[in-house]
Formats: sequence, structure tokens, C-alpha cells
Amino acid sequence: MDGEYRWDPISDRWVIIAPGRAARPDHFQEGVMARQIVAPCPFCRGHEAQTPQPVAVYPPGAAEWQVRVVPNLFPAVAMEWSSAGPSSSAVRPAVGVHEVIIEAPHHVVSLAQLSDEQVSWTFASYRDRLAELGRDSRLAYGAIFKNARAGGGASLEHVHSQLIATAQTPESIAQEMRRLMDHWQARQRCLLCELLAAEVQQSRRVVLDRDGFVAFCPFASRFPYETWLVPQAHAADFTAATPSQLESCGWLMRDLIRRLEASLPEPAYNFWLHTVPFHRRDGAAFHWHFELAPRLTRLAGFELGSGSFINPVSPEKAAQVLRQVR
Amino acid sequence: MDGEYRWDPISDRWVIIAPGRAARPDHFQEGVMARQIVAPCPFCRGHEAQTPQPVAVYPPGAAEWQVRVVPNLFPAVAMEWSSAGPSSSAVRPAVGVHEVIIEAPHHVVSLAQLSDEQVSWTFASYRDRLAELGRDSRLAYGAIFKNARAGGGASLEHVHSQLIATAQTPESIAQEMRRLMDHWQARQRCLLCELLAAEVQQSRRVVLDRDGFVAFCPFASRFPYETWLVPQAHAADFTAATPSQLESCGWLMRDLIRRLEASLPEPAYNFWLHTVPFHRRDGAAFHWHFELAPRLTRLAGFELGSGSFINPVSPEKAAQVLRQVR
Repeated sequence: MDGEYRWDPISDRWVIIAPGRAARPDHFQEGVMARQIVAPCPFCRGHEAQTPQPVAVYPPGAAEWQVRVVPNLFPAVAMEWSSAGPSSSAVRPAVGVHEVIIEAPHHVVSLAQLSDEQVSWTFASYRDRLAELGRDSRLAYGAIFKNARAGGGASLEHVHSQLIATAQTPESIAQEMRRLMDHWQARQRCLLCELLAAEVQQSRRVVLDRDGFVAFCPFASRFPYETWLVPQAHAADFTAATPSQLESCGWLMRDLIRRLEASLPEPAYNFWLHTVPFHRRDGAAFHWHFELAPRLTRLAGFELGSGSFINPVSPEKAAQVLRQVR
Repeated sequence: MDGEYRWDPISDRWVIIAPGRAARPDHFQEGVMARQIVAPCPFCRGHEAQTPQPVAVYPPGAAEWQVRVVPNLFPAVAMEWSSAGPSSSAVRPAVGVHEVIIEAPHHVVSLAQLSDEQVSWTFASYRDRLAELGRDSRLAYGAIFKNARAGGGASLEHVHSQLIATAQTPESIAQEMRRLMDHWQARQRCLLCELLAAEVQQSRRVVLDRDGFVAFCPFASRFPYETWLVPQAHAADFTAATPSQLESCGWLMRDLIRRLEASLPEPAYNFWLHTVPFHRRDGAAFHWHFELAPRLTRLAGFELGSGSFINPVSPEKAAQVLRQVR
């Protein structure tokens, strides 16, 4: 296949799909990550004193926690802001909340290693924390994301995800919101619903289609094996998901990660949630979903300097590989 | 210092500067990269047969090359495109040119290790290749960039940079062009010229100011120690730079990288050129410059999912550190 530019309608982003590049040699042997733990892991059961007091624990009221949400000890944003804060139009206080969701009491590194119950509590904690922070008028958006393995940006390997709620809606979300609202106004339909229907009909890029969710590798995937997990019924707000939807969503995400791990050796990966910003009464056009991105290539000078992505694995091939697992 | 959101006027991008995060522990010991070369280096003198025929060699006509430009063996884009190419509005052929600039005949890894002459030829090659490709009406932009060390995305460690010329102007360039043109129309002045004058006057973020160039750490730096190298006199087109400007630019870039390497242990880094797109007669508002980004933090779920950056080192601190080297 020749390389091609592909356009993603959700983000209005062009991506270069360049399958010829996958074969290029790599003289760096990154090899096995140093897995030595330099200190007792602060996320393991028994070391709770090394993290701040939890803001939530699951199962609620249980003697032994399975999932534990704590404030980040080194937050990127904070609710306290000195009164002598900045005032120019080019600077604003980075007001916000930064929490860590510890997804298991034992030392494992991937969501694929969690029990049914731990996955369910993890996704329930995403909903609960977003619902609570979404009531704070100072906050505009809550970003849920996971960095798994060092190549995915994890600084602690113990399985965890994070929540950064901020006073500004991040650029990618604002852009997606604008595009979905524009389409809704023009066509009285959701752009992602339309896309999903076309993907299901074409089926070439679909990985899973069950329990009310579709997982597919987007036409203009930025990353090799990038996969989106989308509820089939239109829904703007992740926090309105039912317990059974949350459970299905979590288990399907675990299934997708297991497929990745069966196809690639110990892949680093990220996933993140896109959901409607807080306090948006006009936000019905949004369609919440998760985006899962294995980190096999490194973002480098071309991507950072130009804002363009080059993806050496076509999403049709990626979906075929992921579909065939088991 | 509390964390803050900062706005960059050139890109219209907000960044979170969060100095508190720099102190967080990192349980992964990435340690020393495996430096073992798995095969003879194809970029070293004597192995010229392992790369395609050069499109340029420096010094021109010399018996022994110092700098050598070759087509990339595994190009992301190509000028040949099968006639049965895609035709929908969401896909276009990835037409373009992908070249590698080998900056020295001997096996070194960083531009800081090059001789005066090698740096000069390297920057002359950037100009020459862009000038030649810029005459091709099928191409819209030529991106010059460097990936140094594995953390910077280099797949071969031998010192080199790359050129990817494409039929579409990349998004970051198109965005910067729009902003600079809007400002020019509104104020009859260049936005980057204004910014540069303010930075020189304030001086807190300036690293170097000599030979007609200013290097500074931008107010809304995305990356720790991010530094821009900008010609002080307004100029849209890098290919119009004089030989002495090119030489100064290259030597100052080498100086900046030496400062980085004196401040940080074997830092991975990228740099890239922003210059006016090809064939833009209305492009006088552009102001070419280089952006240098050490890669100390990893772009992870938050950045990829939200389009936002969190930078743990304030640019004021970064500039102070870089200024003090020697």
C-alpha cells in the first residue's frame, strides 16, 4: 500500500499512514526495561501511609480496599492559589485537581491483569470522581487517563490511572466539542454515531462489537494499533453511564488491552476518556468514548514540529491483527 | 512558584507550567541506553553503498564528503503514486520527499560534536534542499528536523537530521502562518518581532543574544529547557538567509546544544525549523526560526488525550541554567 494522508472528522486532523516505514531498521536495542523497584512501592497494600488520605475507596466500606483514589503527591494543578496570582491575559492560575486511581492492592502493571471486580471498581471510580468534581463551578473539565509501562509515561509501574481536572477545557476536547456541535446543528445527528454506523457496516476496522459498545481502529489512526471504544447508543456524559454499561466498558477495555498484549511484547500504552465538559447544558452533541493508544513509535521532531502524525501500521491491518486474537 | 497556565501567542496554545512536579520520584531506572550497534553503521564513511545515491554532498566537489544528503530508504512519503490512488475527500496520496542529512562522516551522536565546517555545511544543506524542493509545484512545505538519541526518536544514532517535504502544509505551520498574517494585517507588524523585542528587554528568558540571533526559552514552553533560536531581523524564508547568517545560526544551535549537554546528562533532543511554506507570495508575515526541545519528560495520556502540555521546569529557571553554562 502506498502511503496516504487520511482525515479524521472528529478532530479535523490529517494523519500520514505510511506502511512502508514499519520495516525500517532500528539500531537502538531498547531491550528490557530496568524493572528494579528502587524503593517499596507506595501503591501496594500495606504502604498506604506513603500516599495522602484517599478521597475514595472501593468497595465502599470494605475492610480491604481493591481500588483506592488518592490526591497526587506531586500535582500538576492545585485548588489553592496564592492571592498574588498572575493577572495578564497570557497567564492564568493552573487551578485544578490531580488524583491517582490505584487499581489493585497487589503489584501488577497492566489493566489486563486485573480481576473483573477491580476493573468494575476502577471504572466506577472514574464516574464517581468526575461526578463529584463536575459539581465544582471552578472546574471546566476532568481528564481521565492511564499511562502504562515506562514507554507510556508511567513513573510508577503499579497499575494506576489519573484524573486531572482543570479550570480550562483542554484544546482537544474544545475542538471536538465544536466539531460535534457544528455537525449536530447542520444535520441534527451525531457525527460519531454516523461514523460508528459506517464502521460497523464496513467492518474492516472493527475489533469488537458487543454489549452495546463498538471498538474500532480509526480510519486516520495516529498510532499503530490505536483503538477507540465507543458506546453504540449516543451519550454525551460518561457520568450518566449505568453500572452495567460501566462494567461492560471496563471489561471490554481489558479485553482490548489483552489483545494488544497478545499481539505485541509488553506494549506500553495510554488510554484516555473524552467526555462532555462540566456545566455544558448545550453539550448534548458530545459522544463520550475511550481512546487506547499503544506507544510503539516515539513522537519525535517531525510530529512535534509540524503537528502531524506518521503511522506505519494501517488501521485495517491493526484491526485484523487484534480481531484474530483468540 | 504555583503552577500556572501560560498562553503562547505564536501558536495560540496554552501550557501548564508546574514546577512542583519536577521533584516527583521515578521508579523506572531507564539507565543507559543499549549502545550496541547491531550492524555496521550505514551512515559512516566507507559504508556509502548502504544508502541510496546522494542528492547532495558537501563540500561540493570535494574528494571526501563532510555532509551527505540521501533519500530515506524507508520514506514516510514518496513522489511516485499509483494512478489508482484514493479519491474520497478524507484521503489523499501522501506525496512528498523524505531525505536524510548525514552531518559527519565519523560516528558521533550529537550536533555539539561537529566541527565548525560540518555545522556550516549542514545548515547550508538545509537551505539548498529546501530551495530546490520549493521549486516543485506538487510540494507545499519542507519540514527540517532532527531527532537526537533514542529518547528523541532517533532510530540510528549517527548524527543526522531529516527533511520531509509534503503536498500539504502541516497543521502547526498553517496555524502559525494564519496567526502571523492576522497580526500583520491588524498591526502592520510581525508578532514574533514584537515578542522578541519584549524578551530582549525583559531578558529573564534570554539565553543568547548575538550575531543577529536571539535564543530564548518561550514564556509558554511546552518542554523543560525548550529554546527558540530566532533571527533578530524579520525574515519569512529560511532559504533567503545569507551564508554568514546560516553559519551563525548553525554555530549558535551548536552552542545551545552544548549548554544543554553541560546541564543535563546525555539529553535526548529534537529541533525543527519553522519557515514560510513554499509558493506563498503572501507569506511575508512569517518569521523563520528553530525550536529546540530536550526530551526529558515523556508525552503521555494527558498530553495525547487533551492536547495540553504540562512542563515541570519554568522557562525563567531554564534560561538561567542555560545562560550560566561557561
